[in-house]
Amino acid sequence: MALRVRYADGTLGEVTDPGEALEIYRHSTSHLMAAAVTSLYPETHLGIGPAVSDGFYYDFQREASFGEEDLPLIERKMRELLSRDLRFEPRIVSKEEAIDLFSQKGEHLKVELIREKAGERLSCYRLGDLVDFCTGPHVDSTGLIDPDSFRVLSLAGSHWKGDERNQRLQRIYGTAFLTPEELRSYMEQLEEARRRDHRRLGRELDLFSISEESGPGLILWHPKGARVRLVIENFLRDELLRRGYEFVSTPHIARNALWRTSGHYEYYRENMYVFEIEDEEFVIKPMNCPGHIQIYRSRMRSYRDLPIRYAEFGTVYRYEKSGVLHGMLRVRGFTQDDAHIFCTRDQVYNEITALLDLVLFIMKSFGFDKYKVELSVRDESKKKNYAGTEDDWRMAEDALIGAMRSIGMQWERMEGEAVFYGPKIDVKLIDAIGRPWQLSTVQFDFTLPKRFALAYIGPDGQAHQPVMLHRALLGSIERFMGVLIEHYAGAFPIWLAPVQAVVIPISERHRAYAARVASRLSGEGMRVELDDRN
Amino acid sequence: MALRVRYADGTLGEVTDPGEALEIYRHSTSHLMAAAVTSLYPETHLGIGPAVSDGFYYDFQREASFGEEDLPLIERKMRELLSRDLRFEPRIVSKEEAIDLFSQKGEHLKVELIREKAGERLSCYRLGDLVDFCTGPHVDSTGLIDPDSFRVLSLAGSHWKGDERNQRLQRIYGTAFLTPEELRSYMEQLEEARRRDHRRLGRELDLFSISEESGPGLILWHPKGARVRLVIENFLRDELLRRGYEFVSTPHIARNALWRTSGHYEYYRENMYVFEIEDEEFVIKPMNCPGHIQIYRSRMRSYRDLPIRYAEFGTVYRYEKSGVLHGMLRVRGFTQDDAHIFCTRDQVYNEITALLDLVLFIMKSFGFDKYKVELSVRDESKKKNYAGTEDDWRMAEDALIGAMRSIGMQWERMEGEAVFYGPKIDVKLIDAIGRPWQLSTVQFDFTLPKRFALAYIGPDGQAHQPVMLHRALLGSIERFMGVLIEHYAGAFPIWLAPVQAVVIPISERHRAYAARVASRLSGEGMRVELDDRN
Repeated sequence: MALRVRYADGTLGEVTDPGEALEIYRHSTSHLMAAAVTSLYPETHLGIGPAVSDGFYYDFQREASFGEEDLPLIERKMRELLSRDLRFEPRIVSKEEAIDLFSQKGEHLKVELIREKAGERLSCYRLGDLVDFCTGPHVDSTGLIDPDSFRVLSLAGSHWKGDERNQRLQRIYGTAFLTPEELRSYMEQLEEARRRDHRRLGRELDLFSISEESGPGLILWHPKGARVRLVIENFLRDELLRRGYEFVSTPHIARNALWRTSGHYEYYRENMYVFEIEDEEFVIKPMNCPGHIQIYRSRMRSYRDLPIRYAEFGTVYRYEKSGVLHGMLRVRGFTQDDAHIFCTRDQVYNEITALLDLVLFIMKSFGFDKYKVELSVRDESKKKNYAGTEDDWRMAEDALIGAMRSIGMQWERMEGEAVFYGPKIDVKLIDAIGRPWQLSTVQFDFTLPKRFALAYIGPDGQAHQPVMLHRALLGSIERFMGVLIEHYAGAFPIWLAPVQAVVIPISERHRAYAARVASRLSGEGMRVELDDRN
Repeated sequence: MALRVRYADGTLGEVTDPGEALEIYRHSTSHLMAAAVTSLYPETHLGIGPAVSDGFYYDFQREASFGEEDLPLIERKMRELLSRDLRFEPRIVSKEEAIDLFSQKGEHLKVELIREKAGERLSCYRLGDLVDFCTGPHVDSTGLIDPDSFRVLSLAGSHWKGDERNQRLQRIYGTAFLTPEELRSYMEQLEEARRRDHRRLGRELDLFSISEESGPGLILWHPKGARVRLVIENFLRDELLRRGYEFVSTPHIARNALWRTSGHYEYYRENMYVFEIEDEEFVIKPMNCPGHIQIYRSRMRSYRDLPIRYAEFGTVYRYEKSGVLHGMLRVRGFTQDDAHIFCTRDQVYNEITALLDLVLFIMKSFGFDKYKVELSVRDESKKKNYAGTEDDWRMAEDALIGAMRSIGMQWERMEGEAVFYGPKIDVKLIDAIGRPWQLSTVQFDFTLPKRFALAYIGPDGQAHQPVMLHRALLGSIERFMGVLIEHYAGAFPIWLAPVQAVVIPISERHRAYAARVASRLSGEGMRVELDDRN
């Protein structure tokens, strides 16, 4: 299906690429929404209104606040304008003309954008009474927009140019699809996602909360949430101990000297929380690796000690803008099920194979059977930008690919997606409604062993540098908990459920017996509740 | 036995109180040491030299550093001076004379002390060539000091007047007892304590370390230490769950708003680590209480929900001067086995009784059978200084005393030792060599429920304020681990031992079998090591 579009120079065209067509369609719907808004609320001024990955938005400046009750009015107005089959009329103007035009209309934000624009000529589109400064293309006319293919969805606060220091604007979100069927299916998925929203379920099931007083992005685990977390941690710990891991525990703060050696102080500073003790800088740990390395270095290691696998449920704190925080999924403090493996080059292949086997075991155990694997390797044309030798990268990639092959794992190769210090495998699980979530990571590190001068004594009596792997299975316990809640829509399988049994007496005279039953079950290690309300 | 002493006014006396006699004896021995030091190293200047709880010290100012090798020389010199039966000769002088006298000798630190002294007359004591500014009394002559009753023990850095901003001095520690037998027994205990030193054993048994690079007072738990910690935590958690506690988990950082409400920001600021996020102050938690309170407040509570008992292995960070840090016993980061109980006034007595029963159970479980209990109550003459009503204090004290009586616990009443927000019980355990260690605390809090406006709905449908109790059983897991190591001298009982079995093959050909045995035992949940070295 081709979409008829009008380019800024006035020519007509047909767009057949579905992605490109969808973006133009959404962009045009966004203009239509702006036309509806300015027609309903003439005192409104325009910000910008792009298509985005799941729809479109438009930022407006207006004294009064938009309310939820305005959204259906705007949607109705859009359908009314659309029914007039208005054309998207492009016009090429000089910068000066454009500034005059938008100044007259009092659209000072547009004027600011035009002034910043390079080049002497630019394009505008007229749609009914709305004139917008825009490079296009747009659909030829509103008749091409199906009245059942879009929805005005929600309101949010925003800032001019996305910068919190700039003036506040009001953003209206909408979505549009090329066909009403696609919109319907999207709206159903949205409804499904809303039904599974871990923030709502977390509150309803009394699993966790975030308190304004104690701070955004910081999870308070309530008893029922903490029980599930404990089940997850115990399950994982037992499995790791069986598989030859050793648990360690390292402090949440450390001297900045440590983070200078690790390089985080130089390259990761803006994500770290820094404070002072006795006039010296300390850092709240954003990573567990330097702590594990301290333990590795606490004594001389021999090849007979390797592989060493240090695991920790290590809580780390990283700066995230308050605007991007989202329930348990995007937070400022989270607990990694972190581990670091120190081994010889000869042991790498076996370690990776065992790791991938563990990843599959864990995913299956938690009820996920679909996943995607990405192998991130370096950009071969920019080898200089990466740490490690040619040999390091070959050894690592061979081990990663060999191990995936040996267990029949499919993967996608991501050229140039490796971080500078080594190649990695990322595993994304697919949840019950088809959404992908980043889960496990297996990551080579060619820099830390060098920065911390890690060594072991080989059979030759000489010091050698061990290979170091970072790996997390669940990633973050907070995030994983959020994913689990949404995946199961709050109905956890029995082994994970915060409450495994509720004992309810039929009447007052069964109350004592019910209490005995509850206590007996609880004594057997079950998570039981007694509900003896009348 | 009476000690013949010479008072500053020249009169003789006899001191019969053993504590007072010991202090004078040590103080005189300290002067004797100063006389020995200035005789051996004439370029040395005097600081101060008091008796302390386990001996005495003298602070000296000297360009060159004293070394361990100087200590026996000083001790020998002391015995030599002592054998001359030198008299401690007091003299009352005017402030002016004293300043002249010490200025001539170049003792500018003494001059500084004299200048700060109120009053116009003061006393000095001469001992051989040493003149010290001192209020006395002293033993009449060195002939009263038994040559086998004292020891010069160790060196340490110190600062003039104990202030780190002042000049550095060198402190020499010694000890003395009224009889050689007491000294011998003390030295044996010192040796025993040295043998049990958790810092040395922690290193030798590979339990934990503290890294200069990552920071003082911050414990890195090695695999074997972390195993013991896990055994302790699991044991405690299971017991608490059985006894109706619920575990929660709260973040290590929080907005300063939280600490303003709790009062910590105002009264505890100098112990807290403060940093900024988006120009707002945050605090690394020094306490878990405000976090637990957030969870209590996350929904409306009814009397039917009470008692609520929230437990957490909560890691807190508090400022301690680097000078006072000591292995695991005095640290900057530690994990409290913390809990807070919210209950009605009617439930207090039962809660306290259950708590004390738990304290005894825990102590016994970890191998301690001796303990001391202190009940800290307010100073009745300064009631105004305390939070809570008359009724609050009566209710709390009645519950604490009633509960102790009901289980036959002995206690010592400490008048005026309560903190301002409520009375408490402290339990100190006595370790294998008789040393007391602060262990459990049960503490009423009359302020936080008010500050956070905590409430529950009573049977009358009205909001009531719950009673809040803080309690820790082990106190800090780090500190408790240090105490356990010293108590058991590293030889943990089997259930706590980091390594429960070591499998050692007799020869090369038993190696595979030994590995199978180790793996079998390990599969049964034992902590096993295979030692297959030749």
